[in-house]
Amino acid sequence: MDLKITKSNQLKEKPAQDKLGFGKIFTDHMFIMDYETGIGWHDPRIVPFGPFTVSPATSVFHYAQAIFEGLKAYKNPEGEIVLFRADENFKRMNRSAKRMCIPEFDGEFVLNSLKELIKIDKDWVPSKEGTSLYIRPAIIATDEYVGIKASDHYRFFIIMCPVGAYYSAGFDPVKIWVTKDYVRAVPGGVGEAKTAGNYAASLYASEEASKKGYNQVLWLDGIEKKYIEEVGSMNIFFVIDGEIVTPKLTGSILPGITRNSVIAMAKKEGYKVREERIAIDDIINAHKNGKLDEVFGSGTAAVISPVGEIAYGDEKIVVGEGKTGKISAKFFDLLTDVQYGKKPDPFNWMIKVC
Amino acid sequence: MDLKITKSNQLKEKPAQDKLGFGKIFTDHMFIMDYETGIGWHDPRIVPFGPFTVSPATSVFHYAQAIFEGLKAYKNPEGEIVLFRADENFKRMNRSAKRMCIPEFDGEFVLNSLKELIKIDKDWVPSKEGTSLYIRPAIIATDEYVGIKASDHYRFFIIMCPVGAYYSAGFDPVKIWVTKDYVRAVPGGVGEAKTAGNYAASLYASEEASKKGYNQVLWLDGIEKKYIEEVGSMNIFFVIDGEIVTPKLTGSILPGITRNSVIAMAKKEGYKVREERIAIDDIINAHKNGKLDEVFGSGTAAVISPVGEIAYGDEKIVVGEGKTGKISAKFFDLLTDVQYGKKPDPFNWMIKVC
Repeated sequence: MDLKITKSNQLKEKPAQDKLGFGKIFTDHMFIMDYETGIGWHDPRIVPFGPFTVSPATSVFHYAQAIFEGLKAYKNPEGEIVLFRADENFKRMNRSAKRMCIPEFDGEFVLNSLKELIKIDKDWVPSKEGTSLYIRPAIIATDEYVGIKASDHYRFFIIMCPVGAYYSAGFDPVKIWVTKDYVRAVPGGVGEAKTAGNYAASLYASEEASKKGYNQVLWLDGIEKKYIEEVGSMNIFFVIDGEIVTPKLTGSILPGITRNSVIAMAKKEGYKVREERIAIDDIINAHKNGKLDEVFGSGTAAVISPVGEIAYGDEKIVVGEGKTGKISAKFFDLLTDVQYGKKPDPFNWMIKVC
Repeated sequence: MDLKITKSNQLKEKPAQDKLGFGKIFTDHMFIMDYETGIGWHDPRIVPFGPFTVSPATSVFHYAQAIFEGLKAYKNPEGEIVLFRADENFKRMNRSAKRMCIPEFDGEFVLNSLKELIKIDKDWVPSKEGTSLYIRPAIIATDEYVGIKASDHYRFFIIMCPVGAYYSAGFDPVKIWVTKDYVRAVPGGVGEAKTAGNYAASLYASEEASKKGYNQVLWLDGIEKKYIEEVGSMNIFFVIDGEIVTPKLTGSILPGITRNSVIAMAKKEGYKVREERIAIDDIINAHKNGKLDEVFGSGTAAVISPVGEIAYGDEKIVVGEGKTGKISAKFFDLLTDVQYGKKPDPFNWMIKVC
């Protein structure tokens, strides 16, 4: 396939780097590729960022056959633009595609197309401390048909937005609420796939948490409502008695790329890391016994998100006096130093764009 | 709110009534209403059927905050156009809205707007035996933002398509496959809501069923994988020893309006109806003891869908020699006679449009 490029002749004004926020300002161009049964993925192109004209009968509006990814590009001290583990995002996206009956795609071709897209919009990659270019690849079902079936048409697109520093005012530990009433995913369901419906399904519990004064929901398993799964849209880590523990991937947890990176980095740093089923009661007990050193979430947006408080029914535990722990801060530095090219990259995670 | 009407000046050619199919041909007009936080639902309008122009960042593409309904209008022998229990659809849609953090709407206003829409497109309502006008109301989240949160903007729309007779060549009992590997919904999840993501989540198991030679999936509960929930996108009924049994609504089953209508009609006809948890093993045993008289699904599209075969692991049971049972056929007639105005309407289900 040949990537066709149509450049915009009306470039937008770029926002000030200290006023970027998240997810509302988009770059000048986007990548699009279409699929049709019998033809396959075709017509890959970079075009000016702009709206889609779609029928109200478009399948994704009715049946949510849709998947996405989230990743970032960074500007390093040499002024090069680099991507963090983008190959892993497209591998995971193909796994999500399979689960959701969406046709798989050539990950290498898409990664190369993304590099071209970033090159064209390279002036949009911010350089201020902590800023980055957030990249959103997505596939949506585009049949114009209101019957329930896997679509025969899809659109793959990538849009990008410059985003501000997540911790511009310093680390801000989050307070999380464990829900006993709501379930995010269950074995045999689609919790492992990065599919649109999982996020809609999480909104109600998130709003409940918010009303109670908490930032995020901590989800338990859907069967016994006993084992910890993930927090908000991040994976979760516990530092117990100096060891690092995280829920093992049982099929209903999103296999986070930052999660995987934290585990690799922790092992390299000599920590003992355990991936296992973790009962919420064990965390409450570890805290009572003074052994719960730290809790943090991992994800693309925040990289590391320290947890200062956990509420579970009538129990409320404050972790590390509600402040960011040393190990949480250390992993934030270790990962962001690699991402921003401030330190060597021992795992060859970074992919040079230009 | 005032409903604004803009008529199309280019009416489409209507398809032949014996070649309608399902869900691909749309009428000349549609209903639209928008929502914005702080303003509420506003700008309700009937406009020519046509595409939406939306940003690739539109929230529904990424997070599937979307709900829908399905209902039908019929032409009765007097040439009047009537709706079947449309008020119930909009009540359920408001319940789905609440669960998915979508703002509720004035159901009566929308029902009146739908009547206006049908009047304008009244020539699209087919009159041939078994045909009808399928109506699809939907609400989609329309924030142009890639952060995960309940949207501040929504679009409510109603599109309509003339549909052919479901059983144009006579009843065709379906073969259903019980999945032990895949789960549709779980208590604490969103199975009760008619939300887009539930349908995407069902596709993989449906394709597995299809590969094995079955038409539909029969879903078991997500916790014990033991109790029957629903089949494909229908509710399910069993006739055991002359009594009618259907799974009770436990929160993970869609509360079907046809289901509710079958129960009401069955009671009126003097049947004993039980709504209870039904273990798949009990169905297998009832069949072994010669007491499983009939099995049928209920839903808007087929009304009643007889089940001729059920496969569960190594067990394969043929119900009523794979043919349509008397009670299934009777309920099909009872319901469709009311819907098409051939018989009196004892429950006042029909709503006159014009």
